[in-house]
Amino acid sequence: MRIAEIGEFGLISKIASLIEEKGDRQSPARRDLLLGIGDDAAAWKSPGGIELITTDTLVEGVHFDFNYTGWKDLGWKSMAINISDINSMGGRPRYALVSLALPGRRDAGDVLDLYRGLLEISNTYGIAVAGGNISASDKVVINITLTGLAEGNMMTRSSAQPGDLVAVFGFPGLSAAGRKALSQFINLDADALQLFKNAHLRPVRDFNNGPLLAGLGVKTAIDISDGLAADLTHICMASGVAATLHLNSLPIHPLLTKYFGLEGLKMALAGGEDYELLLTATPDIMKRVNATLDPAPVIIGEITAGKPYAVSLLDEGGNPVHMDFSGWDHYRRPD
Amino acid sequence: MRIAEIGEFGLISKIASLIEEKGDRQSPARRDLLLGIGDDAAAWKSPGGIELITTDTLVEGVHFDFNYTGWKDLGWKSMAINISDINSMGGRPRYALVSLALPGRRDAGDVLDLYRGLLEISNTYGIAVAGGNISASDKVVINITLTGLAEGNMMTRSSAQPGDLVAVFGFPGLSAAGRKALSQFINLDADALQLFKNAHLRPVRDFNNGPLLAGLGVKTAIDISDGLAADLTHICMASGVAATLHLNSLPIHPLLTKYFGLEGLKMALAGGEDYELLLTATPDIMKRVNATLDPAPVIIGEITAGKPYAVSLLDEGGNPVHMDFSGWDHYRRPD
Repeated sequence: MRIAEIGEFGLISKIASLIEEKGDRQSPARRDLLLGIGDDAAAWKSPGGIELITTDTLVEGVHFDFNYTGWKDLGWKSMAINISDINSMGGRPRYALVSLALPGRRDAGDVLDLYRGLLEISNTYGIAVAGGNISASDKVVINITLTGLAEGNMMTRSSAQPGDLVAVFGFPGLSAAGRKALSQFINLDADALQLFKNAHLRPVRDFNNGPLLAGLGVKTAIDISDGLAADLTHICMASGVAATLHLNSLPIHPLLTKYFGLEGLKMALAGGEDYELLLTATPDIMKRVNATLDPAPVIIGEITAGKPYAVSLLDEGGNPVHMDFSGWDHYRRPD
Repeated sequence: MRIAEIGEFGLISKIASLIEEKGDRQSPARRDLLLGIGDDAAAWKSPGGIELITTDTLVEGVHFDFNYTGWKDLGWKSMAINISDINSMGGRPRYALVSLALPGRRDAGDVLDLYRGLLEISNTYGIAVAGGNISASDKVVINITLTGLAEGNMMTRSSAQPGDLVAVFGFPGLSAAGRKALSQFINLDADALQLFKNAHLRPVRDFNNGPLLAGLGVKTAIDISDGLAADLTHICMASGVAATLHLNSLPIHPLLTKYFGLEGLKMALAGGEDYELLLTATPDIMKRVNATLDPAPVIIGEITAGKPYAVSLLDEGGNPVHMDFSGWDHYRRPD
């Protein structure tokens, strides 16, 4: 069967089963492994705490477009999306490896600009860029692997419990609005364009919340890369639970509504690449989170014991809203 | 300047300088870092020993050709080249992340075959495949990151000293012969074809020697990926020394000479992708290595205090042999 037919997540699921079946379960490395495929990062026990490692790839023409993306921003973002994964596990980033596949006709100075961007954010978070490699290719491909350390508890996708509240930071959907505005040259006021563009090119937010949340007792988190609804579905699948979202609780940025209307709502639910944290926690712990963090996350729903994987959307009257909010799949693109 | 003009190593050198200049040198991660860019793997201190991490990318049409490479062999080799890097540092591999960029038209079953190959060699060396990601692209790109642990001493490129002997395992050049035989359909006897083909598709050798060598006191090693002469040059550059190679000491496989004559010698010196270990050590330690390991490495030359970077080739009479043995550079291909 072609990859396009079974989709990214279908293929990942088959790979995970194969590793489960054929991988050696007796090796010391495997015995120390806490989380393998299926979370934002892999995790294993070490004498220094819980070691985390994550990797992400950006492909020219798939994840970014040089028509509206500068090399420095690209470097910044390619590191940011990995920091986001470590943060969503409750860890702090440590070492990065940068693998670049580059066409020979590209300018060496542009590659140094990419490094300037990634070093800028690496310095902010204390990351040492420790290596990588360069190879030739037709398109620019950036793969970054980032290690991290969780000194206390770790947050996962698989720990949500019925009764947990669901909360999210920031304004999901702004990155999707930025992608659309930039790629389709949509006419916007300068401040709206700036907001959307920044959210897409440099999702500037605080990647320090993860360890704080884990320290407050939050056990479940994911960063919004595929879209709010899709990433909540990832939590539901991994935890064997369902979830309800309340339409009128969603933090929709007024400029998203102003320029995109109902489509803006879809962007908030399915846009992806927001890199905001989505978390679930008991009401008690959520109270503590809201009293401690500033800005605090917004409560948007709850985890239920319903049919696993189902994320339901309810309107103000508690009636189900039918909406296609399938998120980002590399082989099933939204839009 | 275009990347093709300054070459892979020119670009890496500019990147390393930029990281040195712009990277934060005060972060705790940076303070624990033992080796950054410029060796087979990055290394840092941890409570459990020396942590190692390496990454390698294989690009369709650049590193492999589906006309003569099966998916299972490709998976095997893509993991093997990373194991080789950890081994050449004196470490044992632990956790792997596999990032695949795949065209949607490709068959999902082929991707599972790739995983079967990489799990086969992962199981041999106790590696847990702990994660990765999949993204869409025009060409197949395989990026694997592998962690490892050196419990005792580490071997590096930068520790060679004048007076050290230079030694190599196996028969360099067989992989290049395999690449040529497979890609140009050269007519060979079955046993020769089998030998060359295996050396190229499944460089089957023992990736356990690294920790043994480090345990015997060897401080300097590199795996032959760019070509014997180029990789020895990497050692010379990193150590600030020169080297002499003796033509008549080189382990040239008789079938390489039979089928490729003088070109076979060039393959041995500049072919690359052999993944055999090249090491330098004092005569005393080399004696211990030769008395302990079976098969032992073959002594092929010595490290000198001459002009850094210069690798000289001498014939039986001690006269210099002039030969172009520049190795693999992604933007300056041999052949």
